[in-house]
Amino acid sequence: MLGAGNVATHLANALQLAGYHIVQVYSRKESSASTLASKLNTRFTIYLSDIDVQADYYFYCLSDNALEFVIQNFKADSGIHIHTAGTISMEVFNNYKTNYGVFYPLQTFSIQKKVNFDMLPVFIEANNAENLIELDTIAKRISADVIEISSIERMKLHVAAVFACNFTNHLFEISSEILSDTRIPFKVLLPLINETTAKLKVLSPHEAQTGPAVRLDFNVMQKHLDSLSSETEKQFIYQILSDSIIKKHQVKDA
Amino acid sequence: MLGAGNVATHLANALQLAGYHIVQVYSRKESSASTLASKLNTRFTIYLSDIDVQADYYFYCLSDNALEFVIQNFKADSGIHIHTAGTISMEVFNNYKTNYGVFYPLQTFSIQKKVNFDMLPVFIEANNAENLIELDTIAKRISADVIEISSIERMKLHVAAVFACNFTNHLFEISSEILSDTRIPFKVLLPLINETTAKLKVLSPHEAQTGPAVRLDFNVMQKHLDSLSSETEKQFIYQILSDSIIKKHQVKDA
Repeated sequence: MLGAGNVATHLANALQLAGYHIVQVYSRKESSASTLASKLNTRFTIYLSDIDVQADYYFYCLSDNALEFVIQNFKADSGIHIHTAGTISMEVFNNYKTNYGVFYPLQTFSIQKKVNFDMLPVFIEANNAENLIELDTIAKRISADVIEISSIERMKLHVAAVFACNFTNHLFEISSEILSDTRIPFKVLLPLINETTAKLKVLSPHEAQTGPAVRLDFNVMQKHLDSLSSETEKQFIYQILSDSIIKKHQVKDA
Repeated sequence: MLGAGNVATHLANALQLAGYHIVQVYSRKESSASTLASKLNTRFTIYLSDIDVQADYYFYCLSDNALEFVIQNFKADSGIHIHTAGTISMEVFNNYKTNYGVFYPLQTFSIQKKVNFDMLPVFIEANNAENLIELDTIAKRISADVIEISSIERMKLHVAAVFACNFTNHLFEISSEILSDTRIPFKVLLPLINETTAKLKVLSPHEAQTGPAVRLDFNVMQKHLDSLSSETEKQFIYQILSDSIIKKHQVKDA
């Protein structure tokens, strides 16, 4: 396991639970490497030259910046070399390794919170059919939803996930800030938020759209903007997203 | 029940289930009035002058534009007059009615999908203590979470809900559009979306933030923008929200 951050920790745990032996943890940061290695009850190293070259699989759960450097400087070419990055092409391994692929679990990992792998999709890609079968076998031991996609599709998926997850969470933060000068706790919004996501099981996001923008209720929108008058950035985001909703629904529903 | 749209339909159903008798449905649109009245097995009218003036409660579940007109032109002043609008002050009833209040169930209502009232918060306000007790009694018969707030707080709550629900849903739509030119179905994002909202039970939105913007991963952000190059509006929203995340986390974490 190359890397000892959020993805490395959750993936290594899931692989171990599925019966795989994690031979060794590598991280250039000793505290991270030793923390993960002790959780997994295995060895660790902070040197690329000390990585065990007898492993069957090398998982690179590294920041995008570090990935290429590590691939080039970890010289061994036995086993299958697999990265877990959403936006890096599989061909980053080309010229350096013989057997390689990508293993991309679609999830938002926070160190503080456990994640069940079995319900989350894993997207795989490999440089040949045999390696694809190997990755498929591993993925199916930790997830019920394994899908083969290309590097280009994975990039689209990653962008889509940023909108659906990272940006959505940021809107929750803005929402909690708006409530912070009232006596209303943010948690009152949780049933509404849950219903918003529950709707997606039965309606498309387009069909599920509600609110003043899709109703073209300019009076309400103006009142909302006025009530945000001391917060120019929130006003700006309110306007941009309302305009975008209006445009999308005018065009499609026309 | 004055009105026969989403909110009127869901609220009338919930009130009836709680044992209240819906005397009559008013809507100026005959098809809407008769549809809701037949669901409730009650009478309807399309004339303000025909509204039964013996009711204990008049619920105005109307568009914000129609509300003031109906209050002024429905002349009766018996019973308690209650509107359900997020952004309209309770004082819209002042000068026209003696007993009045607001009953604001925080939810996103689509006609197509049933809603459980018991788990969603209801926000109430009334023009005096006795009316507040009456509204509190009704609210508690359909919801376990009843909270008294002022009109100003309700406005803030409504804006917060637009960010947390309407805008969030719009991001889901953008996300589904990005996937629409791949073979990846939108539903693969549902576990990710569910985890994003599940996190809010244990972490604040600020703590839960993940993704390239909060990591200051400008390489990934640039790749995402490049992959959206034919979609200038999505690019623009990507930039605005990423900038906002970066600013928020620089300031707060500094």
